[in-house]
Amino acid sequence: MGEVNLHGEWSSPFSYRVIWALKLKAIEFEYIEEDLSNKSPLLLQYNPIYKKIPVLVHGGKPISESMIILEYIEETWPKNPLLLPSDSFERAMARFWIKFSEEKGPTIWKIFVTSGEEQEKVKNESLEILRTIEEKGLGEKKFFGGENIDLLDLAFGWMPYWLGVIEEILGLKLLEADKFPRLHAWIKNFKQVSIIKDNPPDRDRMLIHFSSLREKLLH
Amino acid sequence: MGEVNLHGEWSSPFSYRVIWALKLKAIEFEYIEEDLSNKSPLLLQYNPIYKKIPVLVHGGKPISESMIILEYIEETWPKNPLLLPSDSFERAMARFWIKFSEEKGPTIWKIFVTSGEEQEKVKNESLEILRTIEEKGLGEKKFFGGENIDLLDLAFGWMPYWLGVIEEILGLKLLEADKFPRLHAWIKNFKQVSIIKDNPPDRDRMLIHFSSLREKLLH
Repeated sequence: MGEVNLHGEWSSPFSYRVIWALKLKAIEFEYIEEDLSNKSPLLLQYNPIYKKIPVLVHGGKPISESMIILEYIEETWPKNPLLLPSDSFERAMARFWIKFSEEKGPTIWKIFVTSGEEQEKVKNESLEILRTIEEKGLGEKKFFGGENIDLLDLAFGWMPYWLGVIEEILGLKLLEADKFPRLHAWIKNFKQVSIIKDNPPDRDRMLIHFSSLREKLLH
Repeated sequence: MGEVNLHGEWSSPFSYRVIWALKLKAIEFEYIEEDLSNKSPLLLQYNPIYKKIPVLVHGGKPISESMIILEYIEETWPKNPLLLPSDSFERAMARFWIKFSEEKGPTIWKIFVTSGEEQEKVKNESLEILRTIEEKGLGEKKFFGGENIDLLDLAFGWMPYWLGVIEEILGLKLLEADKFPRLHAWIKNFKQVSIIKDNPPDRDRMLIHFSSLREKLLH
């Protein structure tokens, strides 16, 4: 099937989606860490439109945009385990919530570069989004995908790690355990999946990195 | 396979994507026109998250978001004709450009609610987006999908009709024939597909509708 290379960056939730998907499928790959302040010529050649990580290169062919990469992985290596429902209506529902994560995630991310009154406003918007995810997206299920982790869980993978880092840096809590009991249970389930547990992002390094990023962006 | 109903609105490019896809596949369906100023209880029940058209209801099950509907149609009725490439890398490329259309389309749409200096700025951004679509997305191909119309062409379906209406209302030209010869050839090819030719949006009514919408939004 050809060599698999992944161009990523250690602090990116989008990179981690791809790393986790490849590892869940037990696909061997070479990981190439990109310095985003000095991107490699290869990255620019592979993703000339956005010049962004992650890029998956399979047999010499580059694919960009994390969720498109994940659908590609699912279609190219469809089994062990299946990461999208086999029923086409259920698959449409998964894609609906993946799109929701892609569209609403940036709103929550915005809280990171705000303060004072603006932060309060974004916080309320974010709580509403999280409420919708909890009640309508997750519901009573163990994983977004049902009994097992799937692409939709990976799409929401920014929640278990990155959201906590942001909360810690800002000194505020969005996902309070008593207000979001289902998302809290899901985060626990997500982190207990062995592939996730064995390949977490570097929390300590992220705390330092994102603190300094916030300083730069605010001043 | 169950009844197929489509909740749409006559002036929406997102509705037309679905209408065209269903007709290209020769799927019988009932079309339900929604009054967006007074949405039907059924629409609100079917799409509680966004409360938007289009919604496809197949055998009682509702699917929202036009491109997710199109992927569902392709997966449920995969043949006659195939509307996504059968090769998974080519399919990833199609999804990359569909995402590009979804993300960049709104920037071009923004020109519609601007004037003066701001309009000039959005115009330049729009021209750059159209340049990327022409050179990197379409290239020398007859259709975005190659020799035949496919989902990617439908994703760009806002160009052949809605963009022209906007240009006429604003009295400016984005897609000049000498600057975008390939997109011009594509628009001609697109409009010659018999399903498209026989089911165009109502241009005269759109001119009146969008003119009055612009007045409302600007004042």
